[in-house]
Amino acid sequence: MISREQQLIRDIFAPLTVQEPGAFGLRDDAAVLTTGADDDLVLTADMLVAGVHFLPGDPPDLIARKALRVNLSDLAAKGADPRSYLVSLALTGETGGEWVQGFADGLARDQGIYGCHLLGGDTVKTPGPLTVSVTAVGHVPQGRMVRRAGAAPGDLIYVSGTIGDSALGLAVHSGEMVPGDLNAGELDDLRQRYLLPQPRVVLAPVVREHASAAMDISDGLAGDVALLCDVSGVSAELTVGRVRLSPAAAKVCDADRQWLETALTGGDDYELLICVAPSKRDAFERAAEDAGVAVGRIGYIVAGKEPPVFRDQGGRSYRFENLSYSHLK
Amino acid sequence: MISREQQLIRDIFAPLTVQEPGAFGLRDDAAVLTTGADDDLVLTADMLVAGVHFLPGDPPDLIARKALRVNLSDLAAKGADPRSYLVSLALTGETGGEWVQGFADGLARDQGIYGCHLLGGDTVKTPGPLTVSVTAVGHVPQGRMVRRAGAAPGDLIYVSGTIGDSALGLAVHSGEMVPGDLNAGELDDLRQRYLLPQPRVVLAPVVREHASAAMDISDGLAGDVALLCDVSGVSAELTVGRVRLSPAAAKVCDADRQWLETALTGGDDYELLICVAPSKRDAFERAAEDAGVAVGRIGYIVAGKEPPVFRDQGGRSYRFENLSYSHLK
Repeated sequence: MISREQQLIRDIFAPLTVQEPGAFGLRDDAAVLTTGADDDLVLTADMLVAGVHFLPGDPPDLIARKALRVNLSDLAAKGADPRSYLVSLALTGETGGEWVQGFADGLARDQGIYGCHLLGGDTVKTPGPLTVSVTAVGHVPQGRMVRRAGAAPGDLIYVSGTIGDSALGLAVHSGEMVPGDLNAGELDDLRQRYLLPQPRVVLAPVVREHASAAMDISDGLAGDVALLCDVSGVSAELTVGRVRLSPAAAKVCDADRQWLETALTGGDDYELLICVAPSKRDAFERAAEDAGVAVGRIGYIVAGKEPPVFRDQGGRSYRFENLSYSHLK
Repeated sequence: MISREQQLIRDIFAPLTVQEPGAFGLRDDAAVLTTGADDDLVLTADMLVAGVHFLPGDPPDLIARKALRVNLSDLAAKGADPRSYLVSLALTGETGGEWVQGFADGLARDQGIYGCHLLGGDTVKTPGPLTVSVTAVGHVPQGRMVRRAGAAPGDLIYVSGTIGDSALGLAVHSGEMVPGDLNAGELDDLRQRYLLPQPRVVLAPVVREHASAAMDISDGLAGDVALLCDVSGVSAELTVGRVRLSPAAAKVCDADRQWLETALTGGDDYELLICVAPSKRDAFERAAEDAGVAVGRIGYIVAGKEPPVFRDQGGRSYRFENLSYSHLK
């Protein structure tokens, strides 16, 4: 049920945090450093490896922006506004100055968009794949970081934007999928979503104000809903048909149900999964609309320890196994 | 004169910090985050790659401790006390749970020694060499981080501990050096210095109180003195014979002068390079002694833009080129 990474984290690394409450036992997107000032700092780290998290031939500016943005997405999910970041870069012998300049240009562009600045880092050589490690620092008013662990029965479950475009975009980008019924523009839309996440930084204040729990959707909607429920000690009922798909993704999934599973479990969405108490529903929806981000209500939290259940139109449940939907039953 | 890494940092990455004064244009060991509270936070990041910064077969607990300690050394050089750290780990398919447990055990041990705690991080897969990225967070009273850039003509230059053991230890560890006149204990002393740095965390308050400038010695004493002088806009006069060597290193260097160059330029010392105004000399030396760390005065800062000059007993200068001493003249 849980991945090897999650197992390592829970069994081996979490015990190292017992004296640091801000680490939340490594069961959240980010950690809090209290400073005694009005704002807490929120820290998160992500590492990206060529051939695993991006393709070695991807443009360097997009690799840089992806590395930064996956961290900004974590901050947004915690209700934290971005402040600064450190980037460590392991470069291969073939990586020329032009590549590094392209990488820095990508960072510069996103610094302008998201209002954060380079604070430090490291540059080393590697014989292996190019590797990027980013630690991002955000801030929230004291005590206001939104946890994964706050979901309560009755809370409504929202997802920002659309799900699955990135996973389908990777299938296009890597040549796995050549769907005949998408036009060039639609194919490119999917590819772009894979190449360049759109972190919901503008939702940070909305999350902070209205969410009972939140996380960013990076490992697939299905698995991430399960994680949030697990750490909150609750379960959930969700409706597959309520998960918003882009026109391109909808076309692909309608043509072949296999791709719907890819969409729901494939990851790299960098949308936000947001739980909202019923009393805050209207205010939350208004605030998200004011922020210019579409949010879709896909279900609700229920009491219980069972894995969350996704249902199709007929009420039949998908069963969630190994971070992927194995079958309709 | 400057390495490719330094060139990338100055030309390509430093411009990304112009609106973040706490990054010091990436010309320091660490960055400062002001928080509005009594303490500033000090952040530093280092990445270690198997086959580059450690040997793939090195014990996992020692790899973990080295990765943490090289960061703690940077914090100590800034006068910052350690607080917490994030660690991102790219694991190969062959890395088993036992290895990861050994790695975590190493971190646990050093957490106890240095009083800092795991705050977060990431674990990913890599097809290439195992890679460790650590971001460490320390703290200093507001405005008190010690810079590289503070050295002034007349300041005395000190080095903690002994220099060169680690570079010679690597030569032993990798089989490059088999010096017949060292006994097994001496060989092991050198190897241990390479495998496990001893960051001068206990000197942090002494540095904070007494230093005009400081940095940690990680890329070789000669190159690091040159860096500190460059960023401070000064030069230096140093005496090779004043650089303290361990008994084992002294034996090796006496037998073959080639190893003295290795000692002075080889790196991985993780000792501190500390500049002290003459008026603070006695107080500094007393405080270091009270902290239980030997410090040796190796020279003094002079005005000028020339590279620092190391002189031997006869007053002849070593010339420093490409981060290494190329010849006696």
